[in-house]
Amino acid sequence: MIPSSTDHAHHLLDLVRLPAARLDTLLRRAQMFAEGAQAPAALAGVAVCTLFFEPSTRTRLSFQLAAQRLGAQVLNFDASTASTTKGETDLDTFRTIQAMGVRGFIIRHKGDGAVAALAEAANPGVAVLNAGDGRSHHPTQGLLDMLTLRQAKGEDFSKLKVVIVGDVKHSRVARSDLHALRALGCGEIRVCGPTALLPDDDTLAGCAVSHDLDAALDGVDAVMMLRLQRERMAEGLVASLDDYHRAYGLTEARLRRAAPDAIVMHPGPMNRGVEITDAVADGPQSRVLAQVANGVAVRMAVLEALLG
Amino acid sequence: MIPSSTDHAHHLLDLVRLPAARLDTLLRRAQMFAEGAQAPAALAGVAVCTLFFEPSTRTRLSFQLAAQRLGAQVLNFDASTASTTKGETDLDTFRTIQAMGVRGFIIRHKGDGAVAALAEAANPGVAVLNAGDGRSHHPTQGLLDMLTLRQAKGEDFSKLKVVIVGDVKHSRVARSDLHALRALGCGEIRVCGPTALLPDDDTLAGCAVSHDLDAALDGVDAVMMLRLQRERMAEGLVASLDDYHRAYGLTEARLRRAAPDAIVMHPGPMNRGVEITDAVADGPQSRVLAQVANGVAVRMAVLEALLG
Amino acid sequence: MIPSSTDHAHHLLDLVRLPAARLDTLLRRAQMFAEGAQAPAALAGVAVCTLFFEPSTRTRLSFQLAAQRLGAQVLNFDASTASTTKGETDLDTFRTIQAMGVRGFIIRHKGDGAVAALAEAANPGVAVLNAGDGRSHHPTQGLLDMLTLRQAKGEDFSKLKVVIVGDVKHSRVARSDLHALRALGCGEIRVCGPTALLPDDDTLAGCAVSHDLDAALDGVDAVMMLRLQRERMAEGLVASLDDYHRAYGLTEARLRRAAPDAIVMHPGPMNRGVEITDAVADGPQSRVLAQVANGVAVRMAVLEALLG
Repeated sequence: MIPSSTDHAHHLLDLVRLPAARLDTLLRRAQMFAEGAQAPAALAGVAVCTLFFEPSTRTRLSFQLAAQRLGAQVLNFDASTASTTKGETDLDTFRTIQAMGVRGFIIRHKGDGAVAALAEAANPGVAVLNAGDGRSHHPTQGLLDMLTLRQAKGEDFSKLKVVIVGDVKHSRVARSDLHALRALGCGEIRVCGPTALLPDDDTLAGCAVSHDLDAALDGVDAVMMLRLQRERMAEGLVASLDDYHRAYGLTEARLRRAAPDAIVMHPGPMNRGVEITDAVADGPQSRVLAQVANGVAVRMAVLEALLG
Repeated sequence: MIPSSTDHAHHLLDLVRLPAARLDTLLRRAQMFAEGAQAPAALAGVAVCTLFFEPSTRTRLSFQLAAQRLGAQVLNFDASTASTTKGETDLDTFRTIQAMGVRGFIIRHKGDGAVAALAEAANPGVAVLNAGDGRSHHPTQGLLDMLTLRQAKGEDFSKLKVVIVGDVKHSRVARSDLHALRALGCGEIRVCGPTALLPDDDTLAGCAVSHDLDAALDGVDAVMMLRLQRERMAEGLVASLDDYHRAYGLTEARLRRAAPDAIVMHPGPMNRGVEITDAVADGPQSRVLAQVANGVAVRMAVLEALLG
Repeated sequence: MIPSSTDHAHHLLDLVRLPAARLDTLLRRAQMFAEGAQAPAALAGVAVCTLFFEPSTRTRLSFQLAAQRLGAQVLNFDASTASTTKGETDLDTFRTIQAMGVRGFIIRHKGDGAVAALAEAANPGVAVLNAGDGRSHHPTQGLLDMLTLRQAKGEDFSKLKVVIVGDVKHSRVARSDLHALRALGCGEIRVCGPTALLPDDDTLAGCAVSHDLDAALDGVDAVMMLRLQRERMAEGLVASLDDYHRAYGLTEARLRRAAPDAIVMHPGPMNRGVEITDAVADGPQSRVLAQVANGVAVRMAVLEALLG
């Protein structure tokens, strides 16, 4: 079971049961930032700390830029190297940095529910943003994907057909996307991947599940590709990268089965030649770099809402 | 022999022979910062560098926050990874960063006296703050501990009974605390730990030394626990963590021997279940998180005094 | 063959064919910064990222300080640790950070031409500064060396005699110095080192090549020492550090063969006792720390010119 939270007022831990109105407010503000809105003093004097128990330079950088653009003081704490904490518990690490006066925490952790657990120790006025926990949640990725979809397809998702392709089972990105797509009333959600990489719990409730990518692409408005973790081969879940590419790699030929104006998304970093070809990744339908740009805008909106 | 310095005007290298009046001035200013005083432009345009030859994310973060709150530009140089300096001497590393225009250095080093040695190469107008050298000095830790004691017990230390417990022999925290406690006229200083972990030089001059924690706790106003370095077991100085805990771990039962309003301190990171139990660490008498908060305040006061 | 660029308007990739007038403009502005000129808002709101595929704390720190002094927001991305990019191509890493809104890139790479290749993917308004690629180029080092020469010897280089000593073959510093010295019309350029450490292509065109340091020093106005990479011994290019020192180490005795007011330069970090003795490195003719100071000034001038 994937843990979730309902404390949406003070933290951003997941997109489960996030009210649609709140989602909409965040996305509207994010769109303003994406269009160049400035708020250089929104977080003046506020100290924000990236606290990553699992390394991710790309996500850390995006949050860091977002916080700096709002005038925050940004600190980085890489808790993934053992020497930094010398056996200290994660909770003590969190409480210690909180005691220093840090008001915003951007936390990544390999443990499911670990970020929400730390958020329970937050003092009043302190906000915790989940930057990814285990296979559970990655709410700002979900938000930036929704913003990218809106920019391409408009705000009404009721007629939208979306397919999510790949390793959904181990993907917090997919889970957060699914929560957000449902909240925004997406017309049709398809999921496609090999059986070993699809979850067997209620994650896919309401989704059309397929193991045939050609069929799953038929007429969709958006293709959300997932990154294949190469360690899935060692675990025996994927026979070979070549086999995976043949069955689930997005090629130009395959993409022609989607709607002519379908967009292609990928959370990055991409395994070019595995889940996606160069021609698609760099092609006219790709929104991969727009997603990255939207990531900063969405994180600004969230930081401002929680700490401004 | 532990090296010490008397150049208190330009640097903060240790608390040895630091005039009580200067100690008092720093603590009063730190108290103002602890209560929320702001000085966001005190170090505007001043570049400060954390130069850590021994890693310590926690202390680095505290200094970084303090410097940012004063408006300084903060750089971090992790000199503990070999590749950064490619065989360069520590002195060349220091001189190089100084030549770049950095005016404040926050230096940690595993070698006793190494920070003071680097301070001798400082140009006029450049300040060196010792963030811990070997087993010798950790002056800002001493200051923050004194601030924590003052907040709980008032400024008159003449009737105060304090016990320092644990591995005093290898502890720069203990040495800086001892210097500060003496300077502020502490009424009674007790020290308690296994023989192998107590120094046999003049470090403990004037202290009541004991190997019996129950006796040492009797009626004290403050208990200053030290972190047990786990490598002491490998060195044969500690038989086992269990044995250590039984003899020198602070439990609720033991703490009842202290004065009813005694406070408990620990420099962190804590080995829960070894030198301190959860119940004590998180209990009403614990001042562990207050120490962390005071750390930022004290470092702001020192940075402002030396560089403002 | 060493790749080079002619896109001097938007990036600083090398000093090849850089117009002398542009070189002069940069050096004049850098001199102003070296004398204390301030431009604290020149890059206000501009995000700059150090993107190092090969680690170098010293160079990163210098650029970071320069950017901060101009009011930029500075991010650091250490791409030399594998986990950060998870198999992503360098180009995708660059494009991703660019999509986040970063406008200035300070890139170091071990591959010759790799920085120029990334610059081709730069969007309009984005500037790439080469902080060293392979053995090819290190343009800001070349500029800071020219600034140091000017401060000591004036702007007219036509009568100047300079010798570059050591491992020219593997040195991007030497190549950038050679380009700059020629552009500024240096009267006589000598190069001295063991055959195995001198390039056999057109790098040394127009230089007087020698394997005898005593002869090469005769009457020169400036000695530019290069760092000996210790791995050259493992490669069999250098017999031993002792042998190297005897043949090519700069000692006080040898330095007396140069002009009485000759200056000594070294890009750092120095191998004391190998390519240079303590007496020379710390002696009155050494400009090593002036070079470091000039590095910040030169980088400010370049950042301001490209991004201001």
